This record gives sequence, C-alpha cells and structure tokens, in this order.
Amino acid sequence: MPTRIEPAAAEPAVVGQQESLRQRLLDCRACTLALIEGLSDADVTVQSMDDASPSKWHLAHTSWFFEEFVLGPYAAGYRVIDPRYRFLFNSYYEAVGARQPRPRRGMLTRPAIGEIVDYRRHVDEALSALLAGPAPSGALGLVELGIQHEQQHQELLLTDLLHLFAQNPLRPAWRTAPDAESAARQQAWAGASPSPADATEAKWVGFEGGCFEVGDEGDGFAFDCERPRHRVVLVPYALADRLVTNRDWGEFIADGGYRAPHWWLADGWARVQAEGWHAPLYWERRDGAWVQMTLCGELALDPQAPVSHVSYFEADAFARWRGARLPTEHEWEVAARAQPIDGNLASSGRFRPRPAALDAQAPLRQLYGDVWEWTASPYCAYPGFRIAEGAVGEYNGKFMCGQFVLRGGSCATPQGHLRATYRNFFYPHQRWQFSGLRLARDCG
Amino acid sequence: MPTRIEPAAAEPAVVGQQESLRQRLLDCRACTLALIEGLSDADVTVQSMDDASPSKWHLAHTSWFFEEFVLGPYAAGYRVIDPRYRFLFNSYYEAVGARQPRPRRGMLTRPAIGEIVDYRRHVDEALSALLAGPAPSGALGLVELGIQHEQQHQELLLTDLLHLFAQNPLRPAWRTAPDAESAARQQAWAGASPSPADATEAKWVGFEGGCFEVGDEGDGFAFDCERPRHRVVLVPYALADRLVTNRDWGEFIADGGYRAPHWWLADGWARVQAEGWHAPLYWERRDGAWVQMTLCGELALDPQAPVSHVSYFEADAFARWRGARLPTEHEWEVAARAQPIDGNLASSGRFRPRPAALDAQAPLRQLYGDVWEWTASPYCAYPGFRIAEGAVGEYNGKFMCGQFVLRGGSCATPQGHLRATYRNFFYPHQRWQFSGLRLARDCG
Amino acid sequence: MPTRIEPAAAEPAVVGQQESLRQRLLDCRACTLALIEGLSDADVTVQSMDDASPSKWHLAHTSWFFEEFVLGPYAAGYRVIDPRYRFLFNSYYEAVGARQPRPRRGMLTRPAIGEIVDYRRHVDEALSALLAGPAPSGALGLVELGIQHEQQHQELLLTDLLHLFAQNPLRPAWRTAPDAESAARQQAWAGASPSPADATEAKWVGFEGGCFEVGDEGDGFAFDCERPRHRVVLVPYALADRLVTNRDWGEFIADGGYRAPHWWLADGWARVQAEGWHAPLYWERRDGAWVQMTLCGELALDPQAPVSHVSYFEADAFARWRGARLPTEHEWEVAARAQPIDGNLASSGRFRPRPAALDAQAPLRQLYGDVWEWTASPYCAYPGFRIAEGAVGEYNGKFMCGQFVLRGGSCATPQGHLRATYRNFFYPHQRWQFSGLRLARDCG
Amino acid sequence: MPTRIEPAAAEPAVVGQQESLRQRLLDCRACTLALIEGLSDADVTVQSMDDASPSKWHLAHTSWFFEEFVLGPYAAGYRVIDPRYRFLFNSYYEAVGARQPRPRRGMLTRPAIGEIVDYRRHVDEALSALLAGPAPSGALGLVELGIQHEQQHQELLLTDLLHLFAQNPLRPAWRTAPDAESAARQQAWAGASPSPADATEAKWVGFEGGCFEVGDEGDGFAFDCERPRHRVVLVPYALADRLVTNRDWGEFIADGGYRAPHWWLADGWARVQAEGWHAPLYWERRDGAWVQMTLCGELALDPQAPVSHVSYFEADAFARWRGARLPTEHEWEVAARAQPIDGNLASSGRFRPRPAALDAQAPLRQLYGDVWEWTASPYCAYPGFRIAEGAVGEYNGKFMCGQFVLRGGSCATPQGHLRATYRNFFYPHQRWQFSGLRLARDCG
Repeated sequence: MPTRIEPAAAEPAVVGQQESLRQRLLDCRACTLALIEGLSDADVTVQSMDDASPSKWHLAHTSWFFEEFVLGPYAAGYRVIDPRYRFLFNSYYEAVGARQPRPRRGMLTRPAIGEIVDYRRHVDEALSALLAGPAPSGALGLVELGIQHEQQHQELLLTDLLHLFAQNPLRPAWRTAPDAESAARQQAWAGASPSPADATEAKWVGFEGGCFEVGDEGDGFAFDCERPRHRVVLVPYALADRLVTNRDWGEFIADGGYRAPHWWLADGWARVQAEGWHAPLYWERRDGAWVQMTLCGELALDPQAPVSHVSYFEADAFARWRGARLPTEHEWEVAARAQPIDGNLASSGRFRPRPAALDAQAPLRQLYGDVWEWTASPYCAYPGFRIAEGAVGEYNGKFMCGQFVLRGGSCATPQGHLRATYRNFFYPHQRWQFSGLRLARDCG
Repeated sequence: MPTRIEPAAAEPAVVGQQESLRQRLLDCRACTLALIEGLSDADVTVQSMDDASPSKWHLAHTSWFFEEFVLGPYAAGYRVIDPRYRFLFNSYYEAVGARQPRPRRGMLTRPAIGEIVDYRRHVDEALSALLAGPAPSGALGLVELGIQHEQQHQELLLTDLLHLFAQNPLRPAWRTAPDAESAARQQAWAGASPSPADATEAKWVGFEGGCFEVGDEGDGFAFDCERPRHRVVLVPYALADRLVTNRDWGEFIADGGYRAPHWWLADGWARVQAEGWHAPLYWERRDGAWVQMTLCGELALDPQAPVSHVSYFEADAFARWRGARLPTEHEWEVAARAQPIDGNLASSGRFRPRPAALDAQAPLRQLYGDVWEWTASPYCAYPGFRIAEGAVGEYNGKFMCGQFVLRGGSCATPQGHLRATYRNFFYPHQRWQFSGLRLARDCG
Repeated sequence: MPTRIEPAAAEPAVVGQQESLRQRLLDCRACTLALIEGLSDADVTVQSMDDASPSKWHLAHTSWFFEEFVLGPYAAGYRVIDPRYRFLFNSYYEAVGARQPRPRRGMLTRPAIGEIVDYRRHVDEALSALLAGPAPSGALGLVELGIQHEQQHQELLLTDLLHLFAQNPLRPAWRTAPDAESAARQQAWAGASPSPADATEAKWVGFEGGCFEVGDEGDGFAFDCERPRHRVVLVPYALADRLVTNRDWGEFIADGGYRAPHWWLADGWARVQAEGWHAPLYWERRDGAWVQMTLCGELALDPQAPVSHVSYFEADAFARWRGARLPTEHEWEVAARAQPIDGNLASSGRFRPRPAALDAQAPLRQLYGDVWEWTASPYCAYPGFRIAEGAVGEYNGKFMCGQFVLRGGSCATPQGHLRATYRNFFYPHQRWQFSGLRLARDCG
Repeated sequence: MPTRIEPAAAEPAVVGQQESLRQRLLDCRACTLALIEGLSDADVTVQSMDDASPSKWHLAHTSWFFEEFVLGPYAAGYRVIDPRYRFLFNSYYEAVGARQPRPRRGMLTRPAIGEIVDYRRHVDEALSALLAGPAPSGALGLVELGIQHEQQHQELLLTDLLHLFAQNPLRPAWRTAPDAESAARQQAWAGASPSPADATEAKWVGFEGGCFEVGDEGDGFAFDCERPRHRVVLVPYALADRLVTNRDWGEFIADGGYRAPHWWLADGWARVQAEGWHAPLYWERRDGAWVQMTLCGELALDPQAPVSHVSYFEADAFARWRGARLPTEHEWEVAARAQPIDGNLASSGRFRPRPAALDAQAPLRQLYGDVWEWTASPYCAYPGFRIAEGAVGEYNGKFMCGQFVLRGGSCATPQGHLRATYRNFFYPHQRWQFSGLRLARDCG
C-alpha cells in the first residue's frame, strides 16, 4: 500500500479546507472503531495466518501511523502514551526501526482492547487540536495520507476477520445477513446442475486502440505508485460487461478445471497440487450443495453473485479455459474512467458481492465495488516513478516485485477511497481478499 | 499423560468415600477456574506455539473429558450443551473421532470464555448430581482419573500461559512477586562474576546398590504407566542433595558450554545450532545482567534458585560438563520414597523455583516441587504393561517413544498430585515446562 | 524457454535450405557432445540443486525433444530405443505425461553416459535420414525449434556444471584459464581498497523517447514470447556504456549495501537475511582478497570484469544505491538493435566475463555476451500473444509469472543464438546464471 | 556405531596374533573393494538421501578412519596423500574439525573413484608396513576397531546402494538373483489371498525369568556401548521361533493396519499420514501382485521370506495388532547367547532375507542374519558406561538418544562381525536398513 511522494505539494492552507479535513479525519477514525462493534477481546486479538493481522493491531497501527508521521514531527508537546507501541505497531518501516515480527502480531494479548481504544482517543484528540489551530506546514498532506491509509486498513480488518472466523468450525458471523429469503432460493444449487435462465448473461463491450494517458491526473489525492501520468499504447480490446459469477465458476469446476494442468501457469499448477485447491477459498460442500463462509456466517452460495476469493492463478486459468484473458490494468483504467465511481462498496452495508443489476445504465456493470478485479499486469513502477524520501517512501515502492495489480475495489472498500487510477496489489497465490475477475479479449 | 488401566478395580462403594471424592472433584474444578482470575478474554484464547494450548481450551477440554468418559456413559439423561464441543475439545483421542487440529486451538475465539465457564458449571452440576446419588458402577474410578487429569492441565495451563506472556515485549505478569526486595539484591549478578559465598553448596548423598521393586504399590491412585510394579537392579550411586542452580548454570555458559560440541548429544548439538540456544529459555541479558521471564513478569535472576526451563539436551550436556550424569528414573524413585512429599508446589503460591532451604531435615532437598527433574530414562513401558481398552487407553501408552521421564513435580504442580512413582515425560528438546535437574554419579 | 507458435509458417521447401538446416543441426548436436569432454561419468550425473540438471540429463532431454516432437510424428518407422526414456527425460510437458520429478534427476546413475551417447547417435541418424529425403510437411520448423532448444540447454549445461563444481571443496576446473598471468595481477585486490585508475569508466549514452515497435520482425527464427511485434512508448532515457564491474560491486559491499534494508525490495531483503547473502554467488574471501569460482576453477577476482551471478534483487538494490535504475526490456531492445550481435559468447572459449574493451566502436559496449542483463521488466505476454496448440505450447507461456526478463546473452551463450528481441527470464532470487546488469536512468 | 573405550587394553603383543590381525585387515579391505565391482563411477558417487552415503564416500571414509586414528598417530613418516581428504571424509567427529556436510556428500564427483582406489591402496600399504614390524603400543586395538568399523560400512554401503537403485525407474540390479525359478512360483501372490499351507508356522519358545548378566564378557572385541556387563531382571517371556514374514505382513495390510490409528504410537501415526505409508519400503504393486526392489533388482515378493525394510513404528504396530509385543534387547540377548552365530549373512551371497529353514536344530530360527530385529529397547548407556577420551569417544555415546536397539544382524552383515551382545541402533522412522522383527510376549 502506497504513499504520496510530496505530501506537502497540494497543501491548501485555506481554513475551510482544513476544517473539512479535520471532519473527514474524525469520521474515518470513528468508522474504524465501529467495525469492531460486537467483537470480543479475543476476536480482535487472534491472528489467523501470517498474511493477516488482528483487528486490534489494525486499530493500533493506524493510530501509530498518525503518531509517527504527523504528531511526532508536527504537534509541539505531543505526549507519547507508551514508547513501546512504536515497536509493537510499526508494520514494515525499516527506517523507523525494529518491530514485532509480523507472524507474531497475534501474541499481543496486552495491551488490552480498552487500552487501544484509549490510545486511539488520545491520538484523535491530539490530531483534532493540531488541525483546529493554524496547521503546521507539511502536516496536512500527511493527515490526508493517514486517512487513506486507515481506509485501506478498514478493508483489511474485514478480510482478516473473515479469515479468522472461517477457521472456526462454529462459523461465527460478524453481521447478520439481511436477506434470509434469498438463502432459501439458492439452497438447491449444486454447482453445475441446470439452473434458471441467467438474467445477467455477459456481453462484450469493445474499446478502440491507440495511445492513451494513464495514471494520476493530479486533481486530488493519489498514491505515489499511480504517478507519474504517462502514455501507453493499447490495441483494440473488449471487456465483459459484468464480473465472472459463481455459476460460471461452478462450470469450470464441473469441467475439471482444477485437475487439468494445461489451463494453469506452472507456478499456479504447483500451488493447486501443494495445497489441494479444488474451489475458491471459503467454498464448501454441505449435503451436496455449495455453501460459502461470509462476514454474515455460512450462507448458501448465490450462483448469480460474482465469484470471490480466487487467486490470480485461478483467475488466469479460468480465463484461459473460457478462451479469454484477463485485462491489463491500463485497459481497465481507460475503460473505467468514463464511468461514475459507484457500486456495492462497504457503505452498502452488505459486505458480500451481489448479482449484477439488470437495469444498469453504464456499459460496464460492477466496475467499482463487489470484488477487486485481477488484471494481467504485474505491479511495477510507472516510467519516471521515484520513491519518496524517508520512511513513507517504504509505503509502496518496495513491494514492486512478484505481485499483480487489482482494480475497482470491493464490497469492503470504504466509500470515497477509490478512483479510476487506483492500483491495489497482491501476490498471485493470495485468496483471502474479495478478489474476482472480469474477462477480456483482443478485438479485430 | 497417563490413564488408569482398570479404573473400576479399586472402586470403593462406601458412601463417605464417594462424598469425599465429590468434594475433591469440586475443589479441583474450582481451583482450575481460579487460575484464570485476572486474565482477559484474549489472554485465555491465544495459542503461542503448537506445543501449548490456550487457557480457555484447557478449561473446556478438562470439562469435555468428564463429559465424554463419565457423564456420557454413566449419567442418565445428561444433556450435551453443544455437540460440536466434542470436535473442538477432544485433544488426541483417535477413538473419539476427528478434532480441531492441535496447532489451530488458538483460532477458537468462540465459544467465548463466558460460554466455557457456563459449560464448566453445567458439567460440575451434572457430576455433583451423579455423585450425590448411588454411583453407577465404573464411574468413580473415572471421576478420580478426571481429577488427576485436570490437575495435570492446571500445571500445563500455567506453563502455557508463561510461554504466551514471554512472547510479549510488554512482559505481562500473571501474579505479583511478593518479595520485591529480593529483586534488588540480585540485580548485580551477571552470570559468572564472583558472587557471595553460596550457602547451598551441593553435597553427594550415597545409595546402595541391589535389587529393588519400583512402580505403583496399588495403595492409591496411579496412572497405568506406573504399573506394574517390578524389580530392577541398581548399582551403588549418589545423588546431589539439591538441584542445579542458576549460578551453576552461569558457570556452564561462561565456560563456553553452549559452543562446545563435545558435551552434547548429536541431536542436542544440532538443536543448539539450529535454534541458536545460548542460555535457558526465558533468560535474557538486560544491561549486562541476567533477567528471567516468570509468571510474575520479568525478574532479576536469582543465582541460588534452581535452574529451570532447560531441555533434556541441555541437562545432559551440563551433567557431562560437570563430570557427572543424570540419575535414572529408578535411582530417583528408590531414593525419593523414603522422603515426605513436600516442597515448593503450586500451593505455596510462589509459582517460581526457590533456593534450597539451609535447614532441611531430609537428606535430599528440593525433591518434590520447584522443577521437574530430567532423568536419563527414556519413557518406556514397564515389563508387563498393557494399554487399557477403549479411548482412555490412548492416555499414556501411545506416547512411549522418543520422550524422557521427569520426576518430582514443580512449583506449578498441584498439592496432592504427586507420588514417588509418578512419571512425567517430555521430548528432549522441550523447554517450556518447569524443568531442571539434579546431578548423579556412580559410586564405588 | 520459448517455442515458435506456427513452426511451419516460414518453412522453405527449397532443398538447399534443407541441407543447410541438416548441417546446422548436426553441428549443434556435436557441439553439445563436445561440452562434456573431460568430464567423468559422475560429473555428468550428479544434480547439485533442484534448479539445476545433470549434464547427462541435458544430453538426453535434448534428444528426447527431437524424438517426441519430430521423429515420432514425422519419421515413418522410427524405432524408439527405450520407451521409458519418455518418462525419464521429459522436462515439464504435462501434455506428454508423467515424468521423473525434477529434484530427482540426479538419481539416474543408469542409463550410463555411454548409453546416452548411443541414444544421441540413434536420434542424430534418424534426423539426418529424415532431412536427407523430401522433408515431411511441418517437420522443418520443429527441427529449427529443436536446435534453438538445444542451444539453450548448452548454456544451462555449463551453468549447472559450474554450480556443481562450486559445491566441491576441491574446486575442480572444467577448462584451463588461458591467461594465468592476469591472476597474479589481481591477487592484491581486496574489494574496496584503492586500485589503479579504471580505464573503463562508465559513460551515459542517451536515447530519445517516442513510440517504438518492439518484438520479432518475422525475418528469421524467434520464440513465441517475442511476438507479436507491437508498439510501446518510451520516455527519454540513458544507458551506461558498459556493464557494472566487480570493482563497482566491491564498493557496494564496502558501503554496507548488503546490510542496509532501504536499498532493497521487501522480498529481496527477506532473501538477504534468510540466506545470509553478503556478496555475489561464487565470491569468497581467501586471505583477505576476493576469489571467484569459475568454469576454470577458482581464480582471483578481476575488478574490471563485469559482475556476474547476482540476482535481480541484488541488481535492483545496486542500481538504487547508485542513484540509477535497471533498464526496461524495451529500452534495452530499442538501444540494442542498431548494434551488431557480437561479443564475448561461448565461441570465444573464455567462458568467463571479460573487461570492457577500451577501443570499442559501438556506443554501448558488452551489449551481447559476457553476462545476461537483468531488466526491470517482469516476463509477461506481449499484447496479442497466444499459446501454441499441443505440448510445445508449454514451452514459454506457462512461465509468465513472477520472473524477470534478461537481455543480451552471456559468455556461455552459443554464437548465432541471440537477437535484439530475445527474452530470457529467471526468478528474481536466482543467481546461478551468468547474470549481471547495466545501469539506466531517466533523461530530461 | 560404536568404539572401544580402551583399545590398547587387550593388546596382544604376540607376533602371531599381529600377523593374523594384519591378514584380517587386508581381507576386510579387499572385501570392501569387491563390493563395487560392476558399479559405474556415477553409481558410486550419487547420494540418494541425507541418511545414505555414496559408495565412494564409504570407501574413502573407512580409509580416512585408519589414517586419522592409526597412521597419523602411530606410523612414523606417514605421508598424507591429500590434506583436504580430512575435510571431505570425516563423518561426524567434531573433535577432528569441520567437514563436508552430510547431505552434500553426493556433490563430490571429484576425487574420482580411481583416486579413491589409489587412496585405499596407499593406506593399505602403510598399514601393512606398520603391522609387519614391531607394532607401536596402542595401534593394534585401533586397527581392530578400524576393521569392525569398516565391516559396519560394508553393510551400509549395500543398504545405501539399494536405496539409490530403488529411486531409479529402470530398477537396476547390483547382483543377479540366482534362483530365477522361485520368482515364477511367487508371481501369483497378491498379499492377502489364500496361499499354500505355510510350512514355517511360528511357534512360541518360552524363557524363564530371573536376574541375568548382559553385555560384553570381555573375551574379544566389543564396542564400548556393549559395556559394562551388568545385571538385569527379566520376567518370564516367550519369543517366536522365526521372524515375521511377508505373508504375515500382507495380512496386516489387508486388515487395514496402515489405516487404523489405534495400533500405532502417536509419532508413528503422524509419520504414516505425513509420508503416506501403506506397505514396507520397496514394496510395490504391479498388475495386482506385490513386487519388491532388492539388490538383485525388482523381484516378486516371497511370502515366506522375512519382512524387511519396516520401521520401528511399523514393527511395533504390527506386534500390537497381533496381540504380542517386541522383545527387549536383553530378552533377545539372553535367549540368543545359547545359540551359534550362524545364518543368512553377507557371506551367503544372497543379499536378501530367506524363508526360515524347516529342519533347524536350534530352538530359535533366523536369530542371526536375514534382517535386524527391532527391539522395544531405546538405545541407552549401560549402567557405568563411560565415553572414551578423544575423537573415538564420539563413536557411539553421542547417539544415545531417540534411537532403538536392533539385534541379530542381516543378510548384508559380514561374517564374523556379530555377537550376542551386539547393539545396532536406528531412529524409529528409518526403513532403509534390512530391518524386520520377531514377536515376543509375556508368560505366566
């Protein structure tokens, strides 16, 4: 996850803008805290795998981020609550120093959640005071970065929590599914059996080739990895007008997709065999039908909803099996920027992907929200990219190796966090995010 | 950990004895619950390594043990609170069926600790009712086994908790050290530097050779692995009259003991190198002096206290370096049975090993309590040993491979749990128990 | 390593061309056999790591390739010597079937090297006969592919052999270093100490930006991954006129490059720590000076020769430390195509990188040969790339994930094998190839 | 494998004895060399797993042993051929210094086998000269130790070679099976199907209990671990009069023995699952019948021959399934010492276990030779055992942890190497030795 190169650059000294920033900050902070409503001290403390972090850690780390990068440098007289938190809640900033090893974040039963909530309040008060007066030069851009950073962790908190609950045979639910009736309808679906006509049949939408500018236009916040804006050449292509669905995926499974090496990248096939993959993460068979672990507990699988929790390896193999391919990140961006940033985001309160609407106005449905869309593009530096000075320079640049770009956000992404140029990235074997795919193909 | 072969054999049908059993049971159960006083929901849920279990799991597993082996078979109309607990809280009984994998016990943030406390109360009430009336045949021996089993888990709960807290840079304390003054005195000790004359200089106590009977005499409870009683031949030997101390161990370190392969078993040396051992577990240097993580948090190391948290490999290497050896389990047993079962057990409330008394009456000091004493004896079946029928047969027999016997109990062992024939056992690399050693040598 | 999509496409039916192909084939086959001159049966059989293969296996596998893809389909009446060879010598073609696991290729002490030489002769005779008569349709393109494939294995045979010999404390030499005198001169060099003025100081050569066509032009053999030719946008850039040298690298080491996380990608830093990297592979300190294992045994390190056997992670970190970056593969290709394909290749008989010439005519020295140059480009499909039908489709496409492109060939690459569009690829942690780097930077 | 504590102690200065020792030495050395007849340079160089060593390494190591412990200290003016051999061919003697890591012994394609044969001759000549004159004090006992040591390696060379050849799908044979006809007869046996009446039905032979002396009596060579002689108590027991056969084992398999956890030790069951054990090592199904890889290549399994290549875990599980147990090492020794040391040893030239004779005179058949018999006894120090001074002290003592004793020798053990007190030892999971079992049970 990325940082702004010169946070001070776009700094608006206007008082009204500063007050608006302060309000957005406090809203964002409150929003994070609301996510742990209903969770126990144990729920927020346990770490389910190396890739995931405890909710409590997310709460503390996002506070530490403001303390380290804003309050320490800019808030005169700021009192650090506990100097050891710098060790405990630094994520990966080598320049800041030694830290709790990532795989051992779940060992921290202390400080207790109450202490972390106090810590957050302490940081909030200091930030609020800082922004209430004449803001020190340089601080505002870093506050904005801290908000964006915290929004990223809001999403991670949810995907990490889902992973934790999925380890528990009791299948706990974080929130209640509001539409219990739909569950009934779906219970008969067993993966590849005939099913009612699919109202959301995918259509291809064509795009012209040519030379295009991609990357941040500079008219608002963007992470450093979205810059600099630069030109790329695209050849004519088409994108599916909706995401690949669970029903589509069931056909891949039924056709032996997980047992046929020729659809797979060599590294993907090795992973399929080593880990015994035979369906997306969180799918399980119960009494002959598919169920899926979700943030609302275990539910019957909705065949019309977008498939989620698939790796790049699976997405790539599926596309090849369908005679298609994944889009590049720039094909996606050029196609997306004409459409409004709207969709099934965290603000919908659903926290699960939903079937594509039938009455959509925009040519491409489900472009934002639902699931992050794997692209064929390795996560690389744009031409002319430079890593920022200091610790924030570690935000994005050092991860530009071995990962693939995802676009479009998911049902766990906060409203207001996305844009057409936004680049998310994960390793090709990772599956615990809300990650799915949209098909692409060459034209002409 | 061991089970009784024919639990029904010694069954006393007398009403008074049954009432006494009921009282001991309820005391034992209350004692377990008292151990988690002051711990948070998170503290009792997290698992710090594969070998350790969460406190909550210990609380639930010991209850499940009574449910599975006593209430299910003997308590007519017993209502199971949740059938899924059988999966969650079975430890290793293959005959009972599938279960939560051991390394994933810490994933169970649900059921919450409150539900587990309710579960315990439910089981306690059913057991109490069962024992209030005419006891069904066969149940009493299994209740006794359940008590002994729960006492073992009381000790494990503490050693597992210590391991968890030792992972935390905040060095949490479970209980407060009552003798803060002693900490001051010790702060100057740096391991091998000259120190005040040691009042507890070890002396050799000799024992005659001959043919001896060892193992359970049948006059009370014993685990199956302590039987049958049988004859062994011993040659004349001597035992040190006290345990090896931290001061002794500091000399071993200062002499390069952890860097000299010739003191070590081949497997031990491989472990030293692979894991970078250079001191007992929980020892750390702070400002040039040794400190030690304990159940009372991090304290200055007491040079006169027995060394603890050493592996068999370390104990064996130390003994060789000293020109001595570890005693066999039968040498220990024959020497110990003449002495009273008394010492620094959990009932002392200290929960740390303490220096040997200067005014001891018995020839061998610190025989019971303080630390489990590694012996040179692999954990094997006694001649004529038979594994019990059914699931309880898995209690001890299937672990008779690759482990070594420890004798004497520790500062975390409950009062009343020990006897001279008691055999504890761990793998030679394990260090998280209160494990230390007493030297032995050949005589004549 | 790559295959041609439609091998039959460019097929020239002219007899003269067919005879020339036959001659090139036999020359190539003889060349492979010459590589094992002086090696023992043991030398050609042992496998030194999973990534490497025994020389004998290379000899057999390249023969099997012709048998499987040319002789089987096209040579009527071809007699298979041993049907089990299909299992033993298939590399990774899932479509062909099960095979000897890659990490167990070194277990094959039988068939003996003599039998493999017979196998080669049998295949050569059949191929020669096939090409002597009227060639069956489709066969010629596959023969060409087989030659290119065998040339790739000639290079791998040497790098694998070097790795094997580097495991041996006796430091065996495959060939004798012709210039023993140079060894003497270098013996005093200790890495970072002052050294005689470097006659080969690097200079920057600038290139204009714009829209360029890259990829195979279709006028000769090319692998499928070099196609289709397509347009890319480049911004103005500069390339160093020579490769990074051992002397340069010594400065990086002396400046603590291997101990400073801020120069490194996160995955690279993890690798540095896990494997204790502190210098390129094959560098060792002897009596205060650097020596290097080579195909001519252990030699004093030549500070003016190009650094070799560094991973992508190291190359990337070095470039960042120097305030530069790696070139993209297309920057390299556009710059390279104006220069002749010439340099220190296998045909020079040196089999080690050599210092840059002082009197070079071309603007970029050491462009071909010496060491493969890591580029900043992940190995990906070009726009419009399609995987070929059948088993040969597995040649390149399934490896397009997680690897980086290298350009320019090495001192172990056969003459005639390279071109400006050639794409080699390895994982970013791999170091056993002749892999080095040339610096790049942005302009204007 | 073990060393004599005070090799000089029993030294007979008599000239005749010395000449006899010299002759035995040269015979033993020639015998080792004869083992590699028919093997290629590759065959003797490759290492098939960490536990095994290349034949060439065995040849060199046994020579180094004489060089290090006899020639260096006792042969004035002895010239070391290559000082680097000390590094290459030291096995595990920490006191001698650093050495080629065990898992990398197979990397040594140089020195070539010819050089090793020269090395052997050089050592033989020096030893012969040393023993021809007046022998220096202390040398004779070490020569005797070297002979015993080399005999142990003769057996290991064969078991390691068998393991190597078993990795090869071509199923190479070291020697030809002389009794091809027997193969035909056995081809129909499929494991658990009815078979002709077994003429070698096992019978129980009872032994009285009491107090017995065990261990070396001091009347010839013995390893240090066989000493000191000491008393043990045995209770009445019975031993089967023959080894467990392949037919017996087929019944265990057919009864689901490899799928039923209750027969297994916990560590054994974990191993069964982790490695997918379902039959002894080297058993495979071909066309519905069992075949077995042997030193004579792949042969039909002989149901009447003793089962071989089973681990302790398997032997123990089998015995439990049969309602029996493994004998202790002392039960075996007391029973064995009344019988002659005779059986199917290496000198028979069969190199495979053979069915028990029907006309045996001795009460216990197959006591020596055929397969090593797993005992229930962990490999421990005898009371009063002391490790010898110096490097030879590492021979046995440092392995006394985690291994089990095997008794009786195998079809690969040299004639003259065994005695009733002989203790072999391996880890409980190891299967590549000729290891089988004889059942025992309690009496009375």
